[in-house]
Amino acid sequence: MNTQKIPDIIVSRLPVYLRTLQRMSVSGITTTSSQELGERVGISAAQIRKDLSQFGEFGKQGTGYYIPFLIDKLRTILKVDRIWDVAVIGMGDMGHAIVRYQGFGDRGFQVAMCFDSDPTKIGQKVAGYEVRDTRNLIKDLRESGIKVVMLCVPAAAAQEVADKLVEAGVRGILNYAPISLSVPAEVKVQYIDPAIGLQRMTYYLP
Amino acid sequence: MNTQKIPDIIVSRLPVYLRTLQRMSVSGITTTSSQELGERVGISAAQIRKDLSQFGEFGKQGTGYYIPFLIDKLRTILKVDRIWDVAVIGMGDMGHAIVRYQGFGDRGFQVAMCFDSDPTKIGQKVAGYEVRDTRNLIKDLRESGIKVVMLCVPAAAAQEVADKLVEAGVRGILNYAPISLSVPAEVKVQYIDPAIGLQRMTYYLP
Repeated sequence: MNTQKIPDIIVSRLPVYLRTLQRMSVSGITTTSSQELGERVGISAAQIRKDLSQFGEFGKQGTGYYIPFLIDKLRTILKVDRIWDVAVIGMGDMGHAIVRYQGFGDRGFQVAMCFDSDPTKIGQKVAGYEVRDTRNLIKDLRESGIKVVMLCVPAAAAQEVADKLVEAGVRGILNYAPISLSVPAEVKVQYIDPAIGLQRMTYYLP
Repeated sequence: MNTQKIPDIIVSRLPVYLRTLQRMSVSGITTTSSQELGERVGISAAQIRKDLSQFGEFGKQGTGYYIPFLIDKLRTILKVDRIWDVAVIGMGDMGHAIVRYQGFGDRGFQVAMCFDSDPTKIGQKVAGYEVRDTRNLIKDLRESGIKVVMLCVPAAAAQEVADKLVEAGVRGILNYAPISLSVPAEVKVQYIDPAIGLQRMTYYLP
């Protein structure tokens, strides 16, 4: 398996399969088919079979997929068979909501620290985490070895903070600020932007 | 132009182009090239030219794109040359953050009402909006004509609420609950799930 060659678009679908399989598993379902999985995620059965076949032979003709096995495989492929410490930068409304977010559960991530530049917030506790000073961002991230962060600062500050994150050795930025970030090729950025999500739907509306 | 035939993957990139162009415009930049735009959004110049050419002839060989013109075209294509009223369902931490979100600005959306099922929240004001009772969800949405909602209820409640939204005539659901929704084909769903965003990056990390 040469992960270098898998198209990004296929990689981007794997977490959606994993989420659905994990929820099926919690409901006590132990086997599924590409048809059933496809109906649940809104992707064709053929596409699911094609996507998964990039990584190996995970199902059996006639009996389908054994869910615990497929979950294990996907968790290994996506490297969430471990727990990644994540830092949250910017403790406004969104930062607060994320620190308290309950959806990370068994999905490979835990909030480890949070930062803000506002003196009235620094030192306060949010959901048990003491808000750290962004002036120590590079030092604290380097010492902790954190590679993945969630960036919740205002748009005007996002690029400057992103530059510091790169300097600190961060390799993945989940960006909540409504701005495209410029980072080196080895740093991945994913965007969480509700307006983008909404615009992707209004296109189809009458 | 036959919008039925444009692949979803192309449509999904247009809001990203629009966001970047709008930010360039705010910075006083009036023209751009597919190369420059591509560098800003992390998509190849060839792909951008190919995507835009699906909708018409928006640039000129040699001089590139006139940004205000391209913004107007994209806003029309995405139907955000108007303001869509949006309802927020579920006023937990995330619902609160969304109601206060500043990023919708000139991007086509405004929060118009919000709902919760918790008697201690109903009737309270959040960012100037009175929290409505989800028992009136179908009636209130129908009367308002709202077609787009942001769903921020817990995962366990999301499908039940989604069924009500469909009954109320909603056509687009931005789903913050970490669960795939089952809805009729004419209803669009986009997912905001930080764990999915994070997993799309860890795949590439060492």
